[in-house]
Amino acid sequence: MRTVHVELGSRSYDILIGSHLLNQLGELMRELGLGRKALLVTDTNVGPVYGARVTEILTRAGFQVAMVQVPAGEKTKSLEQAARLYDAAFDHELDRNCPVVALGGGVVGDLAGFVAATYMRGVPFIQVPTTLLAQVDSSVGGKVAVNHPRGKNIIGAFYQPKLVLIDTGTLDTLDRRNLKAGLAEVIKYGVIWDASFFRWLEENISKILGQDPASLDQVIETCCKIKAAVVEQDETEQGRRAILNYGHTIGHAIELLSGYGTYLHGEAVAIGMVYEARLAHRIGLLDAAAVAGIEELIANMQLPVHLPTGINCQEMIKSMYTDKKVTAGKLTFALPERIGCARVVKDLAESDIMKVLEVVPCWPSGF
Amino acid sequence: MRTVHVELGSRSYDILIGSHLLNQLGELMRELGLGRKALLVTDTNVGPVYGARVTEILTRAGFQVAMVQVPAGEKTKSLEQAARLYDAAFDHELDRNCPVVALGGGVVGDLAGFVAATYMRGVPFIQVPTTLLAQVDSSVGGKVAVNHPRGKNIIGAFYQPKLVLIDTGTLDTLDRRNLKAGLAEVIKYGVIWDASFFRWLEENISKILGQDPASLDQVIETCCKIKAAVVEQDETEQGRRAILNYGHTIGHAIELLSGYGTYLHGEAVAIGMVYEARLAHRIGLLDAAAVAGIEELIANMQLPVHLPTGINCQEMIKSMYTDKKVTAGKLTFALPERIGCARVVKDLAESDIMKVLEVVPCWPSGF
Repeated sequence: MRTVHVELGSRSYDILIGSHLLNQLGELMRELGLGRKALLVTDTNVGPVYGARVTEILTRAGFQVAMVQVPAGEKTKSLEQAARLYDAAFDHELDRNCPVVALGGGVVGDLAGFVAATYMRGVPFIQVPTTLLAQVDSSVGGKVAVNHPRGKNIIGAFYQPKLVLIDTGTLDTLDRRNLKAGLAEVIKYGVIWDASFFRWLEENISKILGQDPASLDQVIETCCKIKAAVVEQDETEQGRRAILNYGHTIGHAIELLSGYGTYLHGEAVAIGMVYEARLAHRIGLLDAAAVAGIEELIANMQLPVHLPTGINCQEMIKSMYTDKKVTAGKLTFALPERIGCARVVKDLAESDIMKVLEVVPCWPSGF
Repeated sequence: MRTVHVELGSRSYDILIGSHLLNQLGELMRELGLGRKALLVTDTNVGPVYGARVTEILTRAGFQVAMVQVPAGEKTKSLEQAARLYDAAFDHELDRNCPVVALGGGVVGDLAGFVAATYMRGVPFIQVPTTLLAQVDSSVGGKVAVNHPRGKNIIGAFYQPKLVLIDTGTLDTLDRRNLKAGLAEVIKYGVIWDASFFRWLEENISKILGQDPASLDQVIETCCKIKAAVVEQDETEQGRRAILNYGHTIGHAIELLSGYGTYLHGEAVAIGMVYEARLAHRIGLLDAAAVAGIEELIANMQLPVHLPTGINCQEMIKSMYTDKKVTAGKLTFALPERIGCARVVKDLAESDIMKVLEVVPCWPSGF
C-alpha cells in the first residue's frame, strides 16, 4: 500500500493506494471515529459491480448502510440529484458525525461531496474513486460541485474528504474509454508540474495502455503527490492552484456545447490541452516542439486531439465567459510555459483565442 | 458608529452598528476590493422599502446591481429559491470576486448566504440585516442554510460574511411582532452568557419595547459581542458554540410541527426557552427562581410562553430526532445552569422531556 498525505492542518487526510484495499474500507472508517450510519452513494455503472460488496464490508465493520444509486453520467451532477441524496440522508437519519461515502467516478464524487459538504452544514466525507480520472484528480483536493444547467461546477464548495481510498483493482472493471479519459489528467500533471514524469509517460505508453499494474500504481501515486502539493499551497484556489485548470477552459466549453455526456470530461480536457498549448505558443509562451510533444503524447494515449466539427468558435468563447475562471470580465487560462511548468495568464486577446480555435478540425465526425 | 470585530483569522470581519449606516454601504464595500457586479437579495417585505435606495447607494459606488426579491417568509429558505438566485447570479455574470448582498431578515440572510457559500464554490458575502433578530443573531457567525421539507436548516454551510452592516434606523420600519420576536434571541444571550445583561434587560423593558434608540443600540452591540465571542471560540460548532442553541431544540420542533411561518422563529424560540428552562430544572441543573425569572422576562417582552394547543408531544420528540442536534441517536440540549451560564447536555431521558412538554398549555388558541 502506498500512502500520500495531504497536509491541510485540521483538514488533513491520507490517500491510500493499493490493490484489494476495498476490503479494508470498513476498518479504516471505523478508526476515524465516525458515526455508525453511512450513506453510500454510487451510480448505475459501479453499483451493480461493487455496491453489494462495499455494503457488506461496511456492515461487517459495524456501519448501518443506506445505498443510493444515481444514474451514471454528467447529467447526474444536478441540484435535483443532490435533493434526492438529502432525502436519503434524512430518511436514514444520518447525524453530523455520520459519513457520506462516494463509490464511483468523478460524477459520484463531486455530487456526493457536495451533499456531504452541505448536509447539516457538513458531515464526514469518504472518497472511494473507481475510475482512473477520479483516482488521479477529482477525488483529491476537496473540490465538490454540481452543475448549473448552463455551466459546469457552478454550484459547489471546497470540502476535504476524511480519507481517499484508491483500490487499483477497480480499474480492471473500468471500460477502455474511461481509462483513456483518465490519462488526459495524468498527462496534464506532466505538462504543468513534472517534466520527468512527462518523459516517463512517453516511454511507458504501451505498458500504461496495457494496464500493467505496477505502471498504473506509479501513475496514480505520482499524480496524487502532485495534486496534494498544489492543493497544500493553495487550498481554495486564490492563485497557484489554478494551474490545475490547464486544458479545462476550452475543455469545459466543449463539454457544455456538445451537451454534457457526449464527451467524457477527460476527452474534452485532452482536446482542451492541445488547443491551449497552441494558444500558449501563439502568445509566445511555449515553443513549437513542446506543443508538438504534448499533442503527440495525447494522441498516442489514444485520446482525441481535435475540436468536434459543428462547434461554433464564437459560441465557445461566449461560453468561456460564463465559466468560473473569469475575473472582472477577463478570460483566464492556465498555460504551460515549458513541459513541466505552467502559469495563470489573464488578459488574453480574444483574437488569439479565436485564431487558435479556428484551425480547421479534421477529427473524424464519427468519433 | 459602534464596531464589533469578529476574529477568525483569514475569515475575520467587522460588524458595524449605527443609524444611517446604509448610506455608507457602497463605499465600505468598495474598500473591500470586491468585483463590481453585485447580486442584491431582498424580500417582498423589505424590497419595497429599501431595495431602490440600496441599489442607488451601490450604483453610486460603482457597482452594477441586480436585485432579486424573494417571497417574505420561512418557506423561502428552499433549494428552489436558491436555484432562482443561482440563475440570477449567472444571468448577471457574477464572477468569483463579486458580492452577494443580503438585505432583510434572517430568511434572506440564510438563503443569500447559502447561495454566496456555494456559487462558484464561494463568493464574497455582505450582510445588511434589517430585523432585530437578524441584527443580534443570524447575520453574525456564518451559519447559512436552507430548509429541507422535513427539517429546518438541514442544508447549509459555515460561511462567514466579509462585512455585517447594521443600520439601526431600519428598525423604525420593522413591525412590532418582528421586533418582539428578535427580543427572544436577545434574552437568550442574557440567559446563556451574561447575567448583568439579563438584569439590565429586566430593568429596561419599557425603553426597549418603546424602541428607545440608545437602548436598542446597546442591545445590538452587546448581543453581537457575545455572539462574536462564542463563534471565535468554536466557529463550526464542534462544542461550545452549541450553547447558542438554547431554546432552539424545542423551538425548531414548534416551527416544524405548526408549519413554517405560523410562528416567527423568535416566537418559537421564546416558547422553547421557557420549556427548556423547565427541563433544566427538572434534571436538577437550574433552580426554580431562575426558571420563573426567565419565563417572566419573556412574558414581559410580550412574547409567547406556552406550547401551542394541538401539538402532540410525541410528534415533537420525534421531530427533535431529525434535527441537526442529534448525535448517535441521542437528543442534545443547550440548557442554562444559572442565569448567565449554559452548557450542552446529552443523554437526557425522553421521559423528562415528555414530562416537561406535557404541562397543559393554556395559551389562547387565537395567538
